[in-house]
Amino acid sequence: MDFRETRYGVCTPGFKAAGVKRGRYGVALILADGVCGTAAVFTGNNVKAAPVKYTKGMFRNGVQAVVANSGNANCCVPGGMEDAREMASEASRVLGVGLRHVAVSSTGIIGRRMDVHAVKELIQEAADRLTPSPKGSLQAAKAIMTTDRRIKMYSAECGGVHVGGICKGAGMIAPDMATMLCYITTNAIVRGAELQSALREAVEESFNMISVEGDMSTNDTVLLMSSMSVRCGLKDFKQLLKRVTGELARMIVRDGEGASKFIEVEVRGARSAGDARRGVKAVINSPLVKTAFYGENPNWGRIAAAMGSAIRFDEGKLDISFASGSSTARVVKSGRTMSLDAAKRILANRNIKVVVDLHAGGHSAVGWGCDMTTDYVRINAGYS
Amino acid sequence: MDFRETRYGVCTPGFKAAGVKRGRYGVALILADGVCGTAAVFTGNNVKAAPVKYTKGMFRNGVQAVVANSGNANCCVPGGMEDAREMASEASRVLGVGLRHVAVSSTGIIGRRMDVHAVKELIQEAADRLTPSPKGSLQAAKAIMTTDRRIKMYSAECGGVHVGGICKGAGMIAPDMATMLCYITTNAIVRGAELQSALREAVEESFNMISVEGDMSTNDTVLLMSSMSVRCGLKDFKQLLKRVTGELARMIVRDGEGASKFIEVEVRGARSAGDARRGVKAVINSPLVKTAFYGENPNWGRIAAAMGSAIRFDEGKLDISFASGSSTARVVKSGRTMSLDAAKRILANRNIKVVVDLHAGGHSAVGWGCDMTTDYVRINAGYS
Repeated sequence: MDFRETRYGVCTPGFKAAGVKRGRYGVALILADGVCGTAAVFTGNNVKAAPVKYTKGMFRNGVQAVVANSGNANCCVPGGMEDAREMASEASRVLGVGLRHVAVSSTGIIGRRMDVHAVKELIQEAADRLTPSPKGSLQAAKAIMTTDRRIKMYSAECGGVHVGGICKGAGMIAPDMATMLCYITTNAIVRGAELQSALREAVEESFNMISVEGDMSTNDTVLLMSSMSVRCGLKDFKQLLKRVTGELARMIVRDGEGASKFIEVEVRGARSAGDARRGVKAVINSPLVKTAFYGENPNWGRIAAAMGSAIRFDEGKLDISFASGSSTARVVKSGRTMSLDAAKRILANRNIKVVVDLHAGGHSAVGWGCDMTTDYVRINAGYS
Repeated sequence: MDFRETRYGVCTPGFKAAGVKRGRYGVALILADGVCGTAAVFTGNNVKAAPVKYTKGMFRNGVQAVVANSGNANCCVPGGMEDAREMASEASRVLGVGLRHVAVSSTGIIGRRMDVHAVKELIQEAADRLTPSPKGSLQAAKAIMTTDRRIKMYSAECGGVHVGGICKGAGMIAPDMATMLCYITTNAIVRGAELQSALREAVEESFNMISVEGDMSTNDTVLLMSSMSVRCGLKDFKQLLKRVTGELARMIVRDGEGASKFIEVEVRGARSAGDARRGVKAVINSPLVKTAFYGENPNWGRIAAAMGSAIRFDEGKLDISFASGSSTARVVKSGRTMSLDAAKRILANRNIKVVVDLHAGGHSAVGWGCDMTTDYVRINAGYS
């Protein structure tokens, strides 16, 4: 597919955005010209923040406006539902959008009551700044950052079809308190069930291939809004959507808390797609693998052991190689260890690709992770 | 049950032990007066070290001698099976024990061929030092240490029935390369299937309630040998065995890599025993919870979120308290956060107990963990 990158972020044609940050709180608004075809994917955590429950209950009405705050996750607090509803009401009132079409998200600390008055003030301010220019998208992306160090937005276009998004997420390893929020806009005409399954599929191959450990956030939300104005083949739409979710997901990993290296892991030759995915996840989630990369230590035994905890394979057929830029070093060939000198040089780089071939079948999967550093521990010991 | 602690370690009546360490390698021997009733539990990792496969294939013959080396895991290497067999043969020859009654274990680095000649030399040396005195147990425990800082042995007696063991394990978080080896001896007459199920049950409540993340070792082995000489009720035997495995398991956590705090987690009021266990494990395995304890940060939201990723419960009924020594601080009562000042003071201690009450049923479970520190990362970045 021949797409081109654009600079719209979430401000693709038909959408405005704004963001304000002051003190502990930030507020982002996204406003569509009309009610959108809407799809959404939420956290699988059994503990769900109030705004997740709220938005889960309403997004099928079609979303026209999103209000999201940083600074407080509005999770595990009595009165959380009331606060989520009050945020939605305020946005509804200020933007002149029916309450049933306003989605709400929150990100920040769990278990503390939100200062809903502070948030309401910021909603008003943000509303005054709504703009269809990419600046609005940038401000919105900034407003929802917590431990993020980088702004995350991406958009692309193909044959008049636009898909663009912003997200926040403070790292690979640590879907923190209220990790991952992502809003995507498009003008593609893709109806109901297909929009939802396209989003689910795109999330599976992007955000779910970077996400992590036992630590699943209570607030994760990915929301896709379509103005339904330009015809588009479903296959092309899916490809464009995956491009956007993939780029955003990789931005989260690159911004991983304390991360010093970006690691792409590909498992090939797996018996099934599920095996390939589980193999990739076991590797990118393993603290021992992550700390080995931090130490620039080509300890492929940890990779084999991590995969072995998740899937069955024949160690005697295992190939593993490390690559960076144009250099490649094979560290294991048919289960036999090779010289590790070239691998050590490769691990000194910032971007590393690990390819594992199981020689058991025709399936493969790719995922993205980062190393685990002493800074990761420092950041998470201190955050509150 | 009225038991008393003893100092035998694995040298309970009817057993001798010895250990030697030199350079990169260490060797431990345990020798019984005759062939023992034997039970064993091995790693669930699909990648299994050669000695695990070897011992899994023979322990039902009854074990009379154990030979274990540190320095190399004998895992993911061509020729590993031959090396494991050669270790067993050498021990068989030197000790005059039938080859089919010799069990083998290894711990250390994965993917590098073992220097089996060095190990054979140490086997001979260790054989010369075999002794029924507790010193033999101590030397054996020392010989299998890798990143362990403390020797781990424990034994107890009740009505003439002895159970004693040694183990190695370098930490809660990081079942390293070849984490956990444990040998237990007894004189209790407990036959076949009952011995196996007693061991399985004891492991479930001890080593499996400290174990960890994605990182499951390829070499984990728990072996129980009985000389079958003293009558003992099954219930009493189980209790004594659980005492020994529990103490050894907690020793592993206290020696956790880089750990600065020991954390006991109890989940009460769960709908099922499985829920209680999964809840405990989710908490002790969460890097976010672990780093929060390191930071002495009473961030109970992370505890709720970690449990929510594993089990369903009503946040509105949740009680959480922290305790240390005689001080207790309730941080959440019926889902509402309390003052955290007292909790902060408690978290400044080294030993912390977390009690979570779900108010959903009558089941409970207990597990043990440690905090995650910058030293954890440093140790695992450097180890090779």
